[in-house]
Parts: sequence; structure tokens; C-alpha cells
Amino acid sequence: MNLKNICLFLLLCYTQWLHAENGYELWLRYKLVSKGEFYTSYCLKNRKVMFPGETESLIAAKKELQAGLSGLLNIPYTEEETLEDNMLIVGTPQSVPLFKEQAFHAEINGLSDEGYLILNCTIKGKKTTAIVARTDIGVLYGVFHYLRLIQTNQSLDKLHIKENPKLKYRVLNHWDNLNGTVERGYAGYSIWNWERLPSYKEQRYTDYARANASIGINGTVLNNVNAQAKSLRTDWLVKASGLADVFRPYGIKVYLTAKFSAPKEIGGLNTADPKDPQVRKWWKDKVEEIYSLIPDFGGFLVKANSEGQPGPQDYGCSHADGANMLAEALKPYGGIVFWRAFVYQNERHVDRVINGYNEFKPLDGEFAENVFVQPKNGPIDFQPREPFHPLFGGMPYTPLSLEFQITQENLGHAGHLVYLGTLFEEVLQSDTYENGKGSTVSKVLQNYQKTHGISAIAGVPNIGTDLNWTGHLFGQANWYAFGRLAWNPDTSSGKIAEDWARMTFSNDKSVLSLVLKIMMMSRETYVNYTMPLGLNHIMNYDTHNGPEPWHDDPVWTAFDYHKITKDSIGVNRTAKGTGATRQYHNPVGEMFDDIKQCPQEYLLWFHRVPWNYKMASGRNLWDELVYHYYKGVDEVRQIQTIWNELDGKIDRERFEHVASLLKYQEQEAIWWRDGCLLFFQEYSRLPIPANLEQPKHSLKYYKNIPFPHDWKGLYK
Amino acid sequence: MNLKNICLFLLLCYTQWLHAENGYELWLRYKLVSKGEFYTSYCLKNRKVMFPGETESLIAAKKELQAGLSGLLNIPYTEEETLEDNMLIVGTPQSVPLFKEQAFHAEINGLSDEGYLILNCTIKGKKTTAIVARTDIGVLYGVFHYLRLIQTNQSLDKLHIKENPKLKYRVLNHWDNLNGTVERGYAGYSIWNWERLPSYKEQRYTDYARANASIGINGTVLNNVNAQAKSLRTDWLVKASGLADVFRPYGIKVYLTAKFSAPKEIGGLNTADPKDPQVRKWWKDKVEEIYSLIPDFGGFLVKANSEGQPGPQDYGCSHADGANMLAEALKPYGGIVFWRAFVYQNERHVDRVINGYNEFKPLDGEFAENVFVQPKNGPIDFQPREPFHPLFGGMPYTPLSLEFQITQENLGHAGHLVYLGTLFEEVLQSDTYENGKGSTVSKVLQNYQKTHGISAIAGVPNIGTDLNWTGHLFGQANWYAFGRLAWNPDTSSGKIAEDWARMTFSNDKSVLSLVLKIMMMSRETYVNYTMPLGLNHIMNYDTHNGPEPWHDDPVWTAFDYHKITKDSIGVNRTAKGTGATRQYHNPVGEMFDDIKQCPQEYLLWFHRVPWNYKMASGRNLWDELVYHYYKGVDEVRQIQTIWNELDGKIDRERFEHVASLLKYQEQEAIWWRDGCLLFFQEYSRLPIPANLEQPKHSLKYYKNIPFPHDWKGLYK
Repeated sequence: MNLKNICLFLLLCYTQWLHAENGYELWLRYKLVSKGEFYTSYCLKNRKVMFPGETESLIAAKKELQAGLSGLLNIPYTEEETLEDNMLIVGTPQSVPLFKEQAFHAEINGLSDEGYLILNCTIKGKKTTAIVARTDIGVLYGVFHYLRLIQTNQSLDKLHIKENPKLKYRVLNHWDNLNGTVERGYAGYSIWNWERLPSYKEQRYTDYARANASIGINGTVLNNVNAQAKSLRTDWLVKASGLADVFRPYGIKVYLTAKFSAPKEIGGLNTADPKDPQVRKWWKDKVEEIYSLIPDFGGFLVKANSEGQPGPQDYGCSHADGANMLAEALKPYGGIVFWRAFVYQNERHVDRVINGYNEFKPLDGEFAENVFVQPKNGPIDFQPREPFHPLFGGMPYTPLSLEFQITQENLGHAGHLVYLGTLFEEVLQSDTYENGKGSTVSKVLQNYQKTHGISAIAGVPNIGTDLNWTGHLFGQANWYAFGRLAWNPDTSSGKIAEDWARMTFSNDKSVLSLVLKIMMMSRETYVNYTMPLGLNHIMNYDTHNGPEPWHDDPVWTAFDYHKITKDSIGVNRTAKGTGATRQYHNPVGEMFDDIKQCPQEYLLWFHRVPWNYKMASGRNLWDELVYHYYKGVDEVRQIQTIWNELDGKIDRERFEHVASLLKYQEQEAIWWRDGCLLFFQEYSRLPIPANLEQPKHSLKYYKNIPFPHDWKGLYK
Repeated sequence: MNLKNICLFLLLCYTQWLHAENGYELWLRYKLVSKGEFYTSYCLKNRKVMFPGETESLIAAKKELQAGLSGLLNIPYTEEETLEDNMLIVGTPQSVPLFKEQAFHAEINGLSDEGYLILNCTIKGKKTTAIVARTDIGVLYGVFHYLRLIQTNQSLDKLHIKENPKLKYRVLNHWDNLNGTVERGYAGYSIWNWERLPSYKEQRYTDYARANASIGINGTVLNNVNAQAKSLRTDWLVKASGLADVFRPYGIKVYLTAKFSAPKEIGGLNTADPKDPQVRKWWKDKVEEIYSLIPDFGGFLVKANSEGQPGPQDYGCSHADGANMLAEALKPYGGIVFWRAFVYQNERHVDRVINGYNEFKPLDGEFAENVFVQPKNGPIDFQPREPFHPLFGGMPYTPLSLEFQITQENLGHAGHLVYLGTLFEEVLQSDTYENGKGSTVSKVLQNYQKTHGISAIAGVPNIGTDLNWTGHLFGQANWYAFGRLAWNPDTSSGKIAEDWARMTFSNDKSVLSLVLKIMMMSRETYVNYTMPLGLNHIMNYDTHNGPEPWHDDPVWTAFDYHKITKDSIGVNRTAKGTGATRQYHNPVGEMFDDIKQCPQEYLLWFHRVPWNYKMASGRNLWDELVYHYYKGVDEVRQIQTIWNELDGKIDRERFEHVASLLKYQEQEAIWWRDGCLLFFQEYSRLPIPANLEQPKHSLKYYKNIPFPHDWKGLYK
């Protein structure tokens, strides 16, 4: 071993021991790349950088490039002003006038406001690599993409990458309460330290902005849709402005939720009626104040007339009337309204699945041009699996924003390993047939850019004060996947998982294949052991974790969702039932409507099915149900086995973190399986085949397991 | 530059860029030491390590040594079983039988259960360094001490260090609520994630244990003295056992607070009367259950009959009766009771300063042998400066534990830079004259080891979920100082500050001198701009931050604490007043009693003084007060100037973190100064000298500044 190799060996020892992998660095770890085929080329092409420019965003981009290259390549970051061979050149035509003379200048001009090019090119006879954009933010995005190429071990030769985001507004919707708790957050508390804002800005804010910018997220709603009016009070706006100042260089705009009753609660008015000129003036003044504090404020997210929140219907007005009032106030400043379509009557005789569509479809076209209507991905409420929401494809005249949940409210909180990329992809690639075949949800969202000049997607994040941000290390993948899909909703979830795994763990194929196998099976596994075959909403009423198909009280009953009897299970939502299938375009609606055609994973969602119904597998329904629940638990054990193969191949901290959570997940999977099957069995009266591991306990035992504290429940 | 140097240079670049200094690593950063006089010797002496042993604590020690040496020296950690020259040998005579044959074996046997030796010695003709102890925990402590020698750039030659802790119980008292909030905690939320305990153990728990073990803390009370009975319920005990399992290898025992009414609240009894046999049985059974889950459980901390907490007086029994009941239950298992002496009547005619003494002094000698009575350091309540509590030196027959506050409840929360080492030292070195001159509080505490075989000290920590643990980076120094002083209460605060600064920032003298200057002046600075000359308890009623000498309502009034009139200010606590001075031994009591002898810093604590009273400086009292308040603000600005000299000498993240908090501190210092002086001036009618910067605003303005949200206030 020569001296150089010894030094490098020492360096590796050093890096291995010094920093326990606690997950804080997310996918931006920038660990030294291994000496594979590309290392020499990476070093060669990054030894000298030309990167002029002093704007906030260019400085942020430069800092990132510096940290990234130093870490990944372990070479000093050196900037030069003179053109050299093998140089990396970064900037806009403004910051690097050289770019104006290049053949690709036209291509630069064709980029969107956030797009970028990464290409190998010869400039004045010198071979260079250029990261170039029309705007500073484009440059920042380009830098992150460029670093990702190295992080994921890609070649830097023959590069000609052109990227424009496919959706314009890519927004996180934090459900963070002003008291520091996070509704349905399972990774500690809110990372916003309101007490010390705006004067003190935590390092976490910058790291949050970096992480988001690295995946193209360009907006963040700071507070919960179950809103408090005081978030719009001057002192709280000043606090929010402190966050906006940190996020601005990273291209992230701050949004706030707007409680519809704010004019009454904090404005001293005696109404919030959108017809009242004083109310309208109050919102205009408030918006003016906001923009004086946050000049690039994004706009409002509103949950109105839903689950107890006030709204325009309190005054005999429509959702459109309410949204348009806010839109009018925001319009002069370029602000946007996201108006949620998650509404349902709390009346048992009305099928909740058809509510949102019925309430919003008639309003199509009535919203102002800076309003998005925002349905959740499915028509109920972030279940492990739902068919896509029929408003997608059903609102040609109103731009829709799609709301995903990144936090695992109904997917095991932060205790279960569930990669949601596949769920997101399944929804986005669902074909609505709005304009014939190929009108996927993804295309519907993208199409609004053409028809209305705006497009959007939203995600409710899983971010909290936990050291690793998301509680479960694999929760990071869901944040990551949301961002990547927001940028391009047609990216494959497998490709995203691979990128994430490479950056988070290793480019070593023997590690990658195991991690990816786990990720790609994990969501179906979760569905199997909790709510297979289209079952839904049978989780614990309060915590939304753990099985409670037996929950039955006047406020809320699981029986409305499974309608179990000794003969059958499932809800008839066909044309002859509640009619949910008729909210879809044909042939989708027809397919859902016909029990023979209906995809098995939505069977009990749309159909009421006898226990002895013959499934495609040849099994009857009961046996099929049993099969899925057992498969789910088996798959968790498979995941454990696969994970254990990583012992010694990845760092101990993260290995043990995941291993210990997988044990926890196995226990809960068994609880789900046995609890649900024993309950269903009381009706079906059919046996669990004797060759299967039998439930260890009685139904009564499973009913009495206390539901693990959730964040909200714990603090009562 | 040769290849080796290039590699080292690269290494430095690498380490500099890759890891932003976010403070998470505390004083255990283990960064590569600079190439100073000792580097070669360090490498030579640590190239080979003999460290057999497989117990939990030895493995923890080895892991630490490995991480420490790899980081500090950048050499591979290599263990060998054969003796070599220049070897480092670590263990006990059990794990390294070689030690039994050495001359220092007798010295090993003379060590206490937690003591250790670090020495250079020749074993079988080989020059070695030995870290040796009787117990595994002693080894762990020795390893931390050894690493500290390198971290602080000390020679490893001619070592013969023998350390035994001077106090037996060195305990953190967390005021963490079971709902995740921290009473008077200003660094986020509780780090105990009760939701997922005991099954999931966060990395933070281990790092918490490492940090505490590194400074010798050997116990932790997990929950708030304002207790909830449910912490003793089986499900919560199981959760606590999960933490105990993590802490055990690090020599840290878990304690819990015991709510006196627990037998009623969770035990189903209709009384908590210590005379009731059923109550006594309930506690015995409960303690048995606890030890079945946590075999090395430490014991209970109790706040009884104080500020609304239930206690034995509710049943006509004394504090001793209550404490002894719990002590009896704990005795068979070696458990301890800490019984707090922080009690006062909420009656305005009774001087709060004399309460604790009067209530506990008559009980001296009545407590069981495994009970500590625990007063706070001073007789009121963690003020920026108080004279020592007169119970110290006044309870020869009852072992006392001293309770310090590490969290800055009355010292600017986590927003102000205040090094508390000097405060702790001032208290510990106060001479009680219990047994003549030299009977310092420190000696009083240590003396119980001789008279009663036990001794203790407690600190209410400033630890929370903030990335840097303590909110303000310099808050880490207070946690550190508490631990070092708990181990040896006679250590100088300056030495501790230096060790901390070397480990936290740099061994570079030009950095050190600046950091130390700031630290050593900071607490007096805080006293100056808030409560100089013995003033106290004039902070905001609710948040305990910001000036509110004007607070006056039936529940609580600042006027009882300053008793301001147009003639005078201060409280007469002399023999002719409330008699507080008579609770001290002479000559201390006489000194406090005599306005001429009374140290100026306690003047208004013990005396009522006319505005025109001539001070030693030649100034009258009013001018002296003005002088101190202005000095305080000036000193904050000096601190800012000194800190700014560090720009470029330390990492940007931590430089800016502190710089931004210093701005905040300056604003609050001005608020304190101007608010207090303008208020006092309404009575004194004396001028603020014209040559001084005059208050910019009216008293009314200062009165109307909203008190910054504190953790508790924010979440109402």
C-alpha cells in the first residue's frame, strides 16, 4: 500500500468512525464516492470551477456545490475566472456572459423559470461541463441534479440533460399547529420554533430548505389546515417572515392557511360573510400587510366547511364565493388560493365517497383564475389504497391540485416501513379517460398548465424534530419521492427509490438490490396485512393505527365502511348502489361497476360480495381475504430477512434503527391480521385453514390491546 | 508539500466542508487534533491498544475510545493481545489480569466504585499507558478522561492521574412532562419519545448517556417534580425501563418522581396517608414492581406540600414521615429518596426566604438513612444571584443534596449567553462556618459521605430536542460544568470553562482567550443588567424572562421582593427584620446582618437601603444601581465585540448562531435596564446621569412590550 493509499485508507477509517449515521443529513450526505469506474473522471471534471455571481440563490448553489464536491470527491474546491480545459462552469447568461455566445443559448432561452441544462460542451476550444439556467433558482436546481449524478454514480460524459418542472406549484402542506405539535405527525414536534422567530433562525431551517430545493419543492404551507386565526395576526406574520427569509434563496415560497372566520376572530368584525364589503376589505388589507412583510408570499390554503371548520356556506355562499374573495385579495401580488375539496357530511345515510365530487363538480368553472381546488388523491381519506378521486378528470374548467399524504397517518405512522412512491405512482398513472385513453391523473394535472397556465401538487409531510427528520429512516424516501414526482409526475417510483437508496445507503449493487426489493414490495405488504381487497377505514378511530373494524359508536362506525354480515362484506357503490362508479368516465366507471372487471384491489370498495364468491385465484372471498392477511405478515418477515442480509454492509446505527422498527412492525402486522380475521370470522363463520399459523389469542384479547399512543392522543 | 501532507490537507478540507457544525456532538466532537507539539506522541502512544473484556460497560468504553482516537488522531484503531512498547492498556484487574502483578495494584484497590487511574508505567519491560479501575464503570470514566487529555491538548507523558468522585449521587432532575413538554425548558421538547418506548430506542438516548458519562453524571430523574401519578403506572414503568436499558452500560441509573397522591390516583385507595398500612403496602408493592422492571432503579424524587403538590402534611404528618415511608419501601433494593426542601407558604406576611429553613431545620435527624433532603442552592428560587441556602451547614444530621438549575429559567432562557460555572462555584465555595472557617457548601456536601456514607448533588438540565440539545450553544457549557462540579465540587469554574472551550471550539490560544473572557464575565453581566446589588424576583411573573418589577396582583407581587418607596429599596431581612440573617452561622450571619460588612452583591437582599446611601464606590445607592444596569448593557456589547473577533477563526454556523443570539441578548438587556430604571425612578425621583445613553422610550412603552413566549406560555 503506498502512502497515498494509506492516507485514503485512514480517511475512510476516520469518516467511518467519527460520524454516527443518525440520518440528519437525509439524502445529502455527500460521502466520499468509492473508487469505481468514474472516480478519476469525477475528479478531473471538478478540479476547477467557474462560478461567478453574488445573488442569494447563486451563493446558496455555490455553497452546496462546494460541500457536495468536497465531500464526494475529497478534492479542494477551487474557483478560477479563466477558462480552462475540463472546467465546470455554473451560472446564467447574466452571471456567465460566455454562455450568450454558445450554440445552446437558444436552448437556455427555451427553459422555464425553474428549468436548467447540464451539458458537456466545448467553449473557446476548452472542453467543459456547464450547469446553466435562465434563472438563479434554475442554477440551484441544476447543481443539485449535477451532484445527484455523482452521488448515484452516473457518468459525467456526453451529458445533455434538459429539465423543466412539469408542475408549477410543488408545495408541502405542513399540518403543524402553532403550539408546536403536528397533527398526524409522528416524528416529534414541529420544526418551527415560533418562540424564537423571527430573530433566531435555526440551522434546521436552512437544511430543510436545502433538502426541499434538492427535489424541487418550491412552496411550503407552514401551518395546519385545521387552522387558528392567529396565524394571520401581525406578530405571527412577522415570525413567518423569518422563515420566508431563510427559504427565499432556495426558491421556496411561504404560504399560510387562512381560517375563514379570521375577520371575526382577529379582525374585530362581527361577520366573515364574503358578501360583506368590510370582510372583503379586511382580507385585502390583511393580504397587503402580509406582502409588506413577505414580498414573495405564496398564498393561502383553506379548509372550509369541513370537519367543523368555518366557511362560506355558513353565510349561504358557495365554496367558489369564498375562494374567490381570497383570490381577489391575492391577485395583485400574484398569490394563489388552494381550496381543499375534502368535504363530507357527517351523516350516515350519505356515502362519504361520493360527497366531494357532488359538492365540487357543479362549481366547475366558477373559481377565479388564481384558485386551485385541491382534492386528496382518493375520495375517502388517505387510506392505504383508494381508487383515484373522480374529480380528477371531472373538472376541466378548474385547475386541480392533488393532495398526497407523505406522513403515514393510515400507513403505520412512523413505525412501519412503507415506501409511498408506489402509491403515488399508482394514483398518478391511473387513467381517468377524461379525453380518452392516456388521460392519466398525472396528465390531468399537467394539462392545467396548458389550459390555465398553472398546475400544482401538494404533500402533507412527515417532517418533525426527530434527529432523522421523519422518525423512520425510510420515511425520508417518501418525502424524497413526493418531491421528485412533483417535479415530474411521470417519473417511475422504482427509479426514484433507486436514486434515494443510492444516496442514502450505497451505490454497491449488493446493498441496492436488497434495499430496493424491500421498498418496492413494502406498500403492498402494508395493504395486505391491514386492508386488502379494497377494504378501508377499519383502523382505530382515534389514532388511525391498529385494527378496529369493530368500532361502532354514534359518532363514527367502521360498519359503514365494511358493512359486514354473515353473508357478505363490502359496500355496493355501483350504479345500483350509492353510484360512486358513475362519477368516473367510462370505461373506468363501467369497469369499477362490473364485479367481473373491477380490479381485485378495489373489489370491496365498490362491491358487496358474498363470502363464498369465487375469486380469480379459485379461492372463495373468505379464503382470499385470509390469504392476503397472511401474505402481509409473511412479507414483513421476508422484509426482515432481507434487511438482516445488510448486517455489516451498512453502518450499525441505521441497520439497528431499521431492524428494531421491523420487529415492531411485525408485531403490529400480526395484531392487524389476527384482529381483523377473528372479527370477520364472527360473521363469516368460516375457518382459518389449519395449515396456517393460528391466532395466538382471542378476539377479545386483540380488542383490548391499547392503541399505541399517537402524537395527539398522547398529549391529552 | 509532499504526498502525505497533501492527503492531510485534503482531509482537512473534507472535514471542514462535509459536516456543518450544528452542535449535536456536544463536547465529544473528536475532531482531528492539530499538528502541535503533542501530535506525534499521541499517535505513538495510541497505535496499539490492549482492551479485552465483553461487559456492556467495557464495550461502551471501547466504542468510545475507538471513535475518539480515530477522530482525534486519524489513525486506525488497532487492538492487540500481546504486550508491546508504547501500548495503551485499558481495563480492570479482572479483564486485564496483568494489572494484578503491578506495583499500582494496591492503588487500584484503593479506588472507589467509580474511580480510575491513568498512568504511564512499565509492564514487563514495556513502556505503556494504563487506564485502569476496579470497576467497568471506572474504566469508562477513565477512557473519557483520557480522551479529554487529547482533546484539550495535554501531554500524555508522566501521567499519574487518580480520580475518585467526591460526591456519590450526581443526578440530573429533568422537568420533563409526560406530554412531551419541558417545564422551564427552552430547547425544544423532551427528548424522551414516550410514544415509542420501550420498543424503539432513539440514537439520542445513547448520545445523551455518552455525554453524561463523559462528565460523570450517574443518575437521571426522567420526569418533572410537578408530577403526574401515571408515571408510576405499569405501562409507563415499562417505557422507563427502555431508557434504563440504554443508560445502564453508561453507569446511569433511572429515577422517577413520585406523586404523593399516587396510591389514590392510580392505586385505587381512598387515601395517601402515610399512617395507613394499605398505603404503605401499596408503595412497597409498587417499588417491588419497579425493581422487577428496572433492577438498578435509583429511587424517587419528591416535591411534596409545595406549590399545590400533595404531601404528608395533608394527613397531619411531617415531611420526614412522608419521606421515610418511601425510603422504607426502597431500602431493600438500595434505592434513595430525594425529598425537596423547596417549600413556602403562599402568604404575603411570611418572608419566603426563611420558610424552607424553618420548616426543615426542626426535622434534622428525623429522616431515614436513605433519604436526602434537597434544597435549591439559594433560599428563594434560582435567581441570578442568591446567598447560599442556610440549610447548608444547618442540617448536620440529615444528608442534603444541593439542587442547581442548569436550565436558565431566570437567566435569559436559552437566548442569553450566561456561563453558570461561576454561579455554581460561588455557591459551592460559600463558607457556611458550620464547623469553623472552611466549611464551604462544597465541604458540607462532601462531609455527608463521611458522616452518613452518602452524598449528592442535583441539576435541572437544559436539554431538549433542539439539534444542539440546549438551544444556545453556550448552554452546553452549563450542562458540562454541572457534571464536572458534581464529580468534584472544588474544581474551578475557569478550568472547566477552559476544558469545555477547548473541546467545543479549539485549542488555539487566540480562540480560547476570547471565548473564556466571554464565559467568565457573562454571569456577572447578566446580574448587572437584570438584578444587581441583591435585587431579585423582579422578572416577569409568567415567563420568568424580561423585567416586571411593576408586577402587582393579589396572587403575586414583585413589591414584596423590592419593597420600593420614594425613600428606599430592599428588604430588611436582618435580625431586626425578618431574621433571615439569623439562619446562618456566625460570622456569616453577622456579616450579612451588618450593612457595612454585607457584601454589596447581597445588599438589597438583606437590607432596606435609602436612595442616598453612600456605597463603597463613593456613589449613592441610586447612582450605583444605574451604574450596574448600564455596565450590564455595556458588557453585552463588549461580549459582542469579543465574539466578532472570532469571525473566520471558527466555523460559520456556530459563529452566526451565537452572533445572532447576542443581538437578541443586547435588545433584552436594554429592555431590562431601561424598564427597571424607569420604574425605580418613579420612586427615587433621581436622574439617570446625562452622560449616559438615555432610555429611548417611556416606562409605559417598556411595560407594554409583550413578554416573549416561553415554552409554557406559548402553548396555552
